[in-house]
Amino acid sequence: MSLSPLSVTGADVRAAAEILRGYAIVTPLLESPLLNARLGGRLLLKAEPLQVAGSFKFRGAFARMSQIPAAERGRGVVAFSSGNHAQGVAAAAHALGIPATIVMPSDAPAVKITNTRAWGAETVLYDRARDSREALGAALAAERAATLVKPYDDYAVIAGQGTVGLEILQQTAAHDPRPTAVLVPCGGGGLVAGTAIAVRQHMPETAIWAVEPEGFDDTARALRAGHRLVNPPAPTPLCDALAAPEPGELTFPLNQALLAGGLVVSEASVRLAMATAFHSFKLVLEPGGAVALAAVLDGQFPLAGGTVVVVGSGGSVDPGLFARILAETPPL
Amino acid sequence: MSLSPLSVTGADVRAAAEILRGYAIVTPLLESPLLNARLGGRLLLKAEPLQVAGSFKFRGAFARMSQIPAAERGRGVVAFSSGNHAQGVAAAAHALGIPATIVMPSDAPAVKITNTRAWGAETVLYDRARDSREALGAALAAERAATLVKPYDDYAVIAGQGTVGLEILQQTAAHDPRPTAVLVPCGGGGLVAGTAIAVRQHMPETAIWAVEPEGFDDTARALRAGHRLVNPPAPTPLCDALAAPEPGELTFPLNQALLAGGLVVSEASVRLAMATAFHSFKLVLEPGGAVALAAVLDGQFPLAGGTVVVVGSGGSVDPGLFARILAETPPL
Repeated sequence: MSLSPLSVTGADVRAAAEILRGYAIVTPLLESPLLNARLGGRLLLKAEPLQVAGSFKFRGAFARMSQIPAAERGRGVVAFSSGNHAQGVAAAAHALGIPATIVMPSDAPAVKITNTRAWGAETVLYDRARDSREALGAALAAERAATLVKPYDDYAVIAGQGTVGLEILQQTAAHDPRPTAVLVPCGGGGLVAGTAIAVRQHMPETAIWAVEPEGFDDTARALRAGHRLVNPPAPTPLCDALAAPEPGELTFPLNQALLAGGLVVSEASVRLAMATAFHSFKLVLEPGGAVALAAVLDGQFPLAGGTVVVVGSGGSVDPGLFARILAETPPL
Repeated sequence: MSLSPLSVTGADVRAAAEILRGYAIVTPLLESPLLNARLGGRLLLKAEPLQVAGSFKFRGAFARMSQIPAAERGRGVVAFSSGNHAQGVAAAAHALGIPATIVMPSDAPAVKITNTRAWGAETVLYDRARDSREALGAALAAERAATLVKPYDDYAVIAGQGTVGLEILQQTAAHDPRPTAVLVPCGGGGLVAGTAIAVRQHMPETAIWAVEPEGFDDTARALRAGHRLVNPPAPTPLCDALAAPEPGELTFPLNQALLAGGLVVSEASVRLAMATAFHSFKLVLEPGGAVALAAVLDGQFPLAGGTVVVVGSGGSVDPGLFARILAETPPL
């Protein structure tokens, strides 16, 4: 594998980390010796629910929006999102003093809509079955001459998300042995692409895997097929954060070049991962944020004595849903 | 206030921090800008649920047990605990290769008993209403010539818990203004005493408050009375971790010398704090670990534009109880 032709480089990720310094949280890498003993290896959980606005999305949004020229900031930003990108953009807009308008599906978790508004953003709700969020977002941006902040198909966003990988590198620098794999939740593919860029530049032997929920496994299938594929229409899944229709135009070539492949987990495994994160890490994971942990817990990615990092990408989940999952699901 | 006559000093806490380096987690200080805006100030949450074994107790246990001479380690340690000290001692014993026997009340949360055993400790259950845990623990220790590791009335344990305060100092060193107050959950008083020693040596203007649940407010009453007082008998409270019968013999003089006073919170406020920690910090707090946050959220300790640190001392809570509280309690 040659890294030279990549559209986003390790240097881009390091530059994004400088921009984020003092604004984004360097989230901890959590570990449970008791869970390790059960799993037969060392599992490290990157805790992005502890990031500003509750997910990794603040990183990419802030990195991208920092590049908007001062003269254009007053016209604001527009974003479309199922919820975490919405909160990330709204929080970054708040930090940078930029007005934000967010196009969100009306069936997004209430906590995500409420928090997006709490950051001071205007929200425009749409019907996920009827409307095109891309078209709505583009029309709004054009109408206001605002900057459209895409959730993943943007090089600056990908570099920002890559700071998750850069921190994993730094936080495991003293580990012996180093991690053999990093498993990353995948919707449009920006987080996994950025993480792969950062990690593989310094640890080229480390395998990076995209993890998706059943029914939304477009990246796993596309990586096998060698070209982008679309998911069949489906109702909003438990993992609402990962309901992207297809791999990104910019993210997919990066993921093709850098990933070991894609893993797919069931909703039962996701529930098990949420209950286990509660029990073993005292951390709240939302369904979409729990898929990478799920892939280890359900046995399809055995630790086999090695060290594996799973990214817990977000923690915005409605309390009623979390309570039901907790009441019904014994942890591992 | 003069610090010279104190039985445990800032130097003792710094020495404990050196002993704990590489074993205990430097837990993050979490912050939610949205919650800050609602509260009218800056609230920082010290996240001890992310500590080894899920609470601050590992710090004191490991610091104390590191002082056991090599020749005595084989005879093991004995501890009595409602659960968090049990897990802390068991985890420290595991790390140090010392056999551990833990005397626990039979009505302790199942998660605490299960985890204590998972760390490899032997557990001896007793009836909280009928038996004296102190007598049981002392008898077991004498019988085996083992070292008794007390939960709070031990200078080395107090110094170990004080590393929570030392980290708060270090983590807020760049803050302007510095915190005006630190609120700390209080059972026997070891955590709040240690924290006060560390914080007040370098920030003598900072007020340290002990926070207790209703019905177990012995320290608050004793601080007002000027001498130790016993709680009237009561069933195990929601805040099982804070059900100590009276202030410690060694901790109380320290707390008398160092604390601003005691605050008392209702169970309703504790539930609100647990739901809000879920929502705003994505962190699992157990009832006893949530009392300091509760004292701010229920309005009795207004931030008034200042910066206040609350210690979230532990996160071991049975999933069924957490689910019920979450389902019934809207966050702030």
